[in-house]
Amino acid sequence: METLSIGQYDLIYNAFSFGFATLAAATLFFWLGIGQVKPQYKTALVVTGLVTFIAAYHYWRIGQSWSDAYTLVDGVHVPTEMVFNAAYRYVDWLLTVPLLLVELILVMSLTRSETVKRATSLGLAALLMVALGYPGEVSDSGGVRWIFGLLSMIPFLWIVYQLYVGLGEAIEKQPESARGLVRTARNVVVASWAFYPIVYFAGAVGIEGATATVIIEVGYTVADLIAKAGFGVLIFMIALRKSEEPMRDGGTKAVPTE
Amino acid sequence: METLSIGQYDLIYNAFSFGFATLAAATLFFWLGIGQVKPQYKTALVVTGLVTFIAAYHYWRIGQSWSDAYTLVDGVHVPTEMVFNAAYRYVDWLLTVPLLLVELILVMSLTRSETVKRATSLGLAALLMVALGYPGEVSDSGGVRWIFGLLSMIPFLWIVYQLYVGLGEAIEKQPESARGLVRTARNVVVASWAFYPIVYFAGAVGIEGATATVIIEVGYTVADLIAKAGFGVLIFMIALRKSEEPMRDGGTKAVPTE
Repeated sequence: METLSIGQYDLIYNAFSFGFATLAAATLFFWLGIGQVKPQYKTALVVTGLVTFIAAYHYWRIGQSWSDAYTLVDGVHVPTEMVFNAAYRYVDWLLTVPLLLVELILVMSLTRSETVKRATSLGLAALLMVALGYPGEVSDSGGVRWIFGLLSMIPFLWIVYQLYVGLGEAIEKQPESARGLVRTARNVVVASWAFYPIVYFAGAVGIEGATATVIIEVGYTVADLIAKAGFGVLIFMIALRKSEEPMRDGGTKAVPTE
Repeated sequence: METLSIGQYDLIYNAFSFGFATLAAATLFFWLGIGQVKPQYKTALVVTGLVTFIAAYHYWRIGQSWSDAYTLVDGVHVPTEMVFNAAYRYVDWLLTVPLLLVELILVMSLTRSETVKRATSLGLAALLMVALGYPGEVSDSGGVRWIFGLLSMIPFLWIVYQLYVGLGEAIEKQPESARGLVRTARNVVVASWAFYPIVYFAGAVGIEGATATVIIEVGYTVADLIAKAGFGVLIFMIALRKSEEPMRDGGTKAVPTE
């Protein structure tokens, strides 16, 4: 941990507080909207709110850990004995990243067996991706970071492949009013996740210091807000548009209309 | 209590925080889903959420007790005067273990008299099982641990017998869409509970030290999450599928259709 200027410390502290407020508000937005969608989309909104709820809890704890980790001495913030617990992020991702993929599957309203199959395989791949990153993150060795980082890329690439190829056909069968939004939601997942390996490998090549800390913490926060709250708003809009469709489920279960 | 490395202490701390977040999220998931099931399954979901709510509360307290029990001195975590309160787990189990069995009985929608009879007998056996374990857990004597551990196995085996034989016929009469899930839920109860005696008797044969502490605390957490949140998701799925059945109650009350 390095010494931070008052401006640097405050920027990160405020980013964490902003993260908590955004995620807590997003949670309430998704749950208060449950009554507005058809029954088959309610679970998708429940899960969307769970993701932001879990993340809000972790931003609250990260903020507390951040305040405990520094003390102001002669106009600069010096690290205390209480080390900042960056692992809260991994604990959060273990839960939220699989659930994010489950949200997307649920709002697509595939057949029951397809939903279970896709949600399970994508969820497990996401869990594996996050779990493989952890040993590298907590290691002091650049080599260990590279090995686990590269291992973690295997499930990541499999997920990307599944989202574009495996789910491609199902996405094209979504009702027209929602199809573009489903594609955007899929792209947001992939684009926002691309930020995490950049930060991870920045650690492996030894980029550190006060400026790097600011970029990493603020960057993770922005990526989390896009991937969870922003993505959730898309899921909400999809559920709402599909609820307005005259078809029973508006998904691939319906008789093909093409 | 033994000295722990920073990595060991943090892993346990993060497991407790993960436990809290998962259980709190699971509670909201179950309660937000109450509106999606038929009236006769609502109580099952209320109780499912109560179990995870009670456990979330205990994981919060366990996490606090864990932070108070250690202090960082020269790069290692040394025990403080505030001893870690492992009894929170027993207090939790006294409430949640009987309720877990009640959940399963409620979602099966047996006749009213059968529900009361089964829920009472299984609940009391579970209470006895947990209560008998406690004197052994707090004793320093390996002999006392063995005696109470073995006594506690008697209600445990009776519960297993009831779940497979006593409830076997009722499970086979569940509607086809839910039968496999009910069997899985029953197996999850027995399989996840099998972990607890392993840890308990590990204490009786004198396995201890920092690594054992990590395995015990992380292992209990994983077992609790499977037995409460994972099991709860199965109960939720059973309630949802049975609510979609055309029959009035979808349980053994209906006129046999075979």
